Amino acid sequence: MIDSGATAFVLICTAMVMLMTPGVGLFYGGLVRRKNFISMIALAFIAFAVVALQWVIFGYSLAFGSDIGGLIGNLDYVFLHGVGMDGDGIPDLLFMVFQLVFAGLTLAIVTSAVAERVKLSSFIIFGLLWTTLVYDPLAHWAWGGGWAAQLGALDFAGGTVVHISSGFSALALALVIGKRVGFGQYSMEPHNIPMTLLGGALLWFGWFGFNAGSALAADGLAANAFVVTIIAAAAGALAWLFAAWIRGKPSSVGMISGALAGLVAITPAAGFVDPMASIAIGAVAGIICYWALLFRMRKGLDESLDAWAVHGVGGFWGALATGIFAVAAVGGVDGLLYGNLGQFVIQLVDAAVVVLYAFVVTFVLAKVVDTALGLRVSEEEEYVGLDIAQHGESTQL
Amino acid sequence: MIDSGATAFVLICTAMVMLMTPGVGLFYGGLVRRKNFISMIALAFIAFAVVALQWVIFGYSLAFGSDIGGLIGNLDYVFLHGVGMDGDGIPDLLFMVFQLVFAGLTLAIVTSAVAERVKLSSFIIFGLLWTTLVYDPLAHWAWGGGWAAQLGALDFAGGTVVHISSGFSALALALVIGKRVGFGQYSMEPHNIPMTLLGGALLWFGWFGFNAGSALAADGLAANAFVVTIIAAAAGALAWLFAAWIRGKPSSVGMISGALAGLVAITPAAGFVDPMASIAIGAVAGIICYWALLFRMRKGLDESLDAWAVHGVGGFWGALATGIFAVAAVGGVDGLLYGNLGQFVIQLVDAAVVVLYAFVVTFVLAKVVDTALGLRVSEEEEYVGLDIAQHGESTQL
Amino acid sequence: MIDSGATAFVLICTAMVMLMTPGVGLFYGGLVRRKNFISMIALAFIAFAVVALQWVIFGYSLAFGSDIGGLIGNLDYVFLHGVGMDGDGIPDLLFMVFQLVFAGLTLAIVTSAVAERVKLSSFIIFGLLWTTLVYDPLAHWAWGGGWAAQLGALDFAGGTVVHISSGFSALALALVIGKRVGFGQYSMEPHNIPMTLLGGALLWFGWFGFNAGSALAADGLAANAFVVTIIAAAAGALAWLFAAWIRGKPSSVGMISGALAGLVAITPAAGFVDPMASIAIGAVAGIICYWALLFRMRKGLDESLDAWAVHGVGGFWGALATGIFAVAAVGGVDGLLYGNLGQFVIQLVDAAVVVLYAFVVTFVLAKVVDTALGLRVSEEEEYVGLDIAQHGESTQL
Repeated sequence: MIDSGATAFVLICTAMVMLMTPGVGLFYGGLVRRKNFISMIALAFIAFAVVALQWVIFGYSLAFGSDIGGLIGNLDYVFLHGVGMDGDGIPDLLFMVFQLVFAGLTLAIVTSAVAERVKLSSFIIFGLLWTTLVYDPLAHWAWGGGWAAQLGALDFAGGTVVHISSGFSALALALVIGKRVGFGQYSMEPHNIPMTLLGGALLWFGWFGFNAGSALAADGLAANAFVVTIIAAAAGALAWLFAAWIRGKPSSVGMISGALAGLVAITPAAGFVDPMASIAIGAVAGIICYWALLFRMRKGLDESLDAWAVHGVGGFWGALATGIFAVAAVGGVDGLLYGNLGQFVIQLVDAAVVVLYAFVVTFVLAKVVDTALGLRVSEEEEYVGLDIAQHGESTQL
Repeated sequence: MIDSGATAFVLICTAMVMLMTPGVGLFYGGLVRRKNFISMIALAFIAFAVVALQWVIFGYSLAFGSDIGGLIGNLDYVFLHGVGMDGDGIPDLLFMVFQLVFAGLTLAIVTSAVAERVKLSSFIIFGLLWTTLVYDPLAHWAWGGGWAAQLGALDFAGGTVVHISSGFSALALALVIGKRVGFGQYSMEPHNIPMTLLGGALLWFGWFGFNAGSALAADGLAANAFVVTIIAAAAGALAWLFAAWIRGKPSSVGMISGALAGLVAITPAAGFVDPMASIAIGAVAGIICYWALLFRMRKGLDESLDAWAVHGVGGFWGALATGIFAVAAVGGVDGLLYGNLGQFVIQLVDAAVVVLYAFVVTFVLAKVVDTALGLRVSEEEEYVGLDIAQHGESTQL
Repeated sequence: MIDSGATAFVLICTAMVMLMTPGVGLFYGGLVRRKNFISMIALAFIAFAVVALQWVIFGYSLAFGSDIGGLIGNLDYVFLHGVGMDGDGIPDLLFMVFQLVFAGLTLAIVTSAVAERVKLSSFIIFGLLWTTLVYDPLAHWAWGGGWAAQLGALDFAGGTVVHISSGFSALALALVIGKRVGFGQYSMEPHNIPMTLLGGALLWFGWFGFNAGSALAADGLAANAFVVTIIAAAAGALAWLFAAWIRGKPSSVGMISGALAGLVAITPAAGFVDPMASIAIGAVAGIICYWALLFRMRKGLDESLDAWAVHGVGGFWGALATGIFAVAAVGGVDGLLYGNLGQFVIQLVDAAVVVLYAFVVTFVLAKVVDTALGLRVSEEEEYVGLDIAQHGESTQL
């Protein structure tokens, strides 16, 4: 039976999550140099469009088709065959599209790694393959009845599937594509921070759809997810702000990055932990991700817009935190803090396997695409900027 | 009886559609020259405000009052008399305001035709008359029990009422107001493409409210409408992108225009076609609308921001596509592809009549307003730009 | 019992209200000089984050804990103790977070008073204290069972709690912090009006969640609140536009300010008046608030971004208007127009007490913080701008 309230809720949540993809584009677009502003936003849109078609043609089936050996779904739902207007609580088509917007967003996050230097055509090929070889299996593992689900790993709204996966994939991809010309030598300050803050606001807004919507019902659990999401974001924002303040001036980019770190970390936990735990989860995320960013910069690593530091590291912390703070009164499972060491170990194993899988497969895939097609524009095009070089457009009129 | 889930859904959808109007303003504002940036956004807001009052005073009654000869509604609902908090599924007031936001948006789309040269006072008068003489009758024909509804024409969410109507009205209006000074001689490149992409994102987001909300319930049909909307947008974006890529560089403006073309085309079809059909509908829309834009430019026609090419042509294609791809399993009606030639003919007749009506009435109306009040600012004001000339404001500090 | 439709509705409304806070940031950010653009947006985010934590730790309990003498709530709900996933209609946690986003927004509105000159650290301290000493008691008075509720004062969605309170607090704060250097001597024109219009659009969008969501159900009353909200905004926008047109050119900033004035004024009334009353309420708000702004400027008072003129004065008018136009058919209470003078007097008393309380407590509090910590940056920092001085960031690359 379809529940009208649940359906209303998940429909709107899906639209909100969809808005996160241009949100990522704006967030990233403000952080790059002006000559690549359009490119960053366009990459997000194009990532979304490519994944949307992949998803309805075969991606959804790979992720949610009947389980094959705990590793991948079968092809039952190819071309959305058998995915209809009926369903259990919400229509099957709605569940499918709710998952679609997650998949599209995740690829958009990965563009962090290739900012200001990627060849558009190669990115499209890479994105299609990445979604097929990395995202779809991970979604199956956590939510489609794969091994992680069978093991009892908890990932309420995508800590492993979306965040660890995009973050560590970005790390691998950055290693393959290499640094931007002049990285570490010239200033590459964000050119349009208000746009980044606006993008961050849209992400924050959409994240409620992301986390609360993952309850797939408009109930107390959704409300709990909503509440812990808002708290973790606030705690993360303030934690990063104050941590940075100790070292110098508290930047707004740090503040919004801290909010995102908190949001990332609470994502797997949102349906399992209570509000007070979310203060700790968010605050720790703000500090850890800030350290990760400093570490990344000290290492001279050009994972340009910190998908790794925020999504990867924040997601890893979130997976563990779920195993620490989970409480049966919320989601039916206790964590370490309530005496259940087992859950913590499961979370650790799950997160570690996802880190490894995402990193290795992405690394190999990026190498293959780079060898076959070239991931990167020419040095001259990079100098001119991707807006003009790839799109024939400019914001420098 | 009021259904709480349906009411929740349509309330939020209405807010989302409302956000499309500033979305159009931002989309258009990014496409014009900097000196008219504020003007384009302000026109959208003002269009909305004027139509909102018109609608609650008498517009709603003209559209949805008891039918008079298949042509127009009567005055039963003037001043919202008899439109209350009760209703069938959703409150009557909610249905009224859901329709209000459509009406406001439609006039905002029309501002494409007069960009960078319209006199604000004349536009307000024109807008009031246009909504009364064009929009309200068209809404009545399709949804208020008028001749098109009686004939069985299908328009789920406004392909004729909103898109053909705004697109072909824009064409007529552009012919009356004439080209911008220097059109075809000087470059008039978009000055702020990120703002256009942001506006496009808000439109895409709001479109879910537009199309899925038109189910007036949170059910499987709404989910179907949501799914085909997201697919058609993606297909349209990629189709235009690749079509443009063949001729040169794939611009982000082309990509987002393609998304809008797909969204326009799926609008009348969203409650009648299945997901796989929407790939075709969106992709064809992306290509046809791109051709229409090239045609418009070759003809030296200054319908400045392509409401005609995207909304008019895309809407026409959508009306026909509904008659081709409709399938009884979704919305109860089969189309040409399923052997029902009759439906296709009905769609063709309906679309053609709306094209004709919108174009002719708008042309005459624009001529009248132009003669009586002057639609256009002076050449000097046009040179200075409408931000300063009409509003005394500037973004060029 | 939890109602799934109501819960869906209030969940999404909460997200929409949350988006208003960055909306305020963008709105204000566009109005200041470029050197303080980032600062204004950051202040909104930081205000929100600080209040979010305050609220879940003890603020919610002060506002909604069991009544102590009509003045304040007790500490029953500290750390959200006893606030759970169950509830009456909607989960208790959801009611709590719906109220949280109101509290965060209100402090963000107050930043109007200190634009371009506030010391970030002092603002954080001030904000914490202000929310505790001003916002929380006012929320208790109106909605938590305090004296105003006991008296029968009507405030559907926060006319006193949010708008009078932020507006008159901003006035007091502006008097304490003093004028910006060069105020009245140098031009301080808005540097980015499109961003202000975008912020205004997000505010307008979120306001539906604010007003209709305050029904705490997806029903006819919510629909009524939605409808009067859209009408009052439109009427306010046009009223201010035309009023300003008489004196000169109709600015878009005036138009959007008028929309906000209408939105403010309808806020307390949204669940009590009918649609036609909202035309009058919005239009009068647009004119009165425009006068208030002119008055403020004539007096050389640097309440920089007119929270007082729009929220304070508009909120006062709204409180009275509720007492004038309320009609039993909508919300069960008649106003002056329907022969109930008593309600009007109650509204007047309530509004006057809130004006007095907010102004006096804020004035004293601001004096204390200023004396202890200094509310204001140095003249040199003010000259450089807060983006660089406080955040080490810039939009002037």
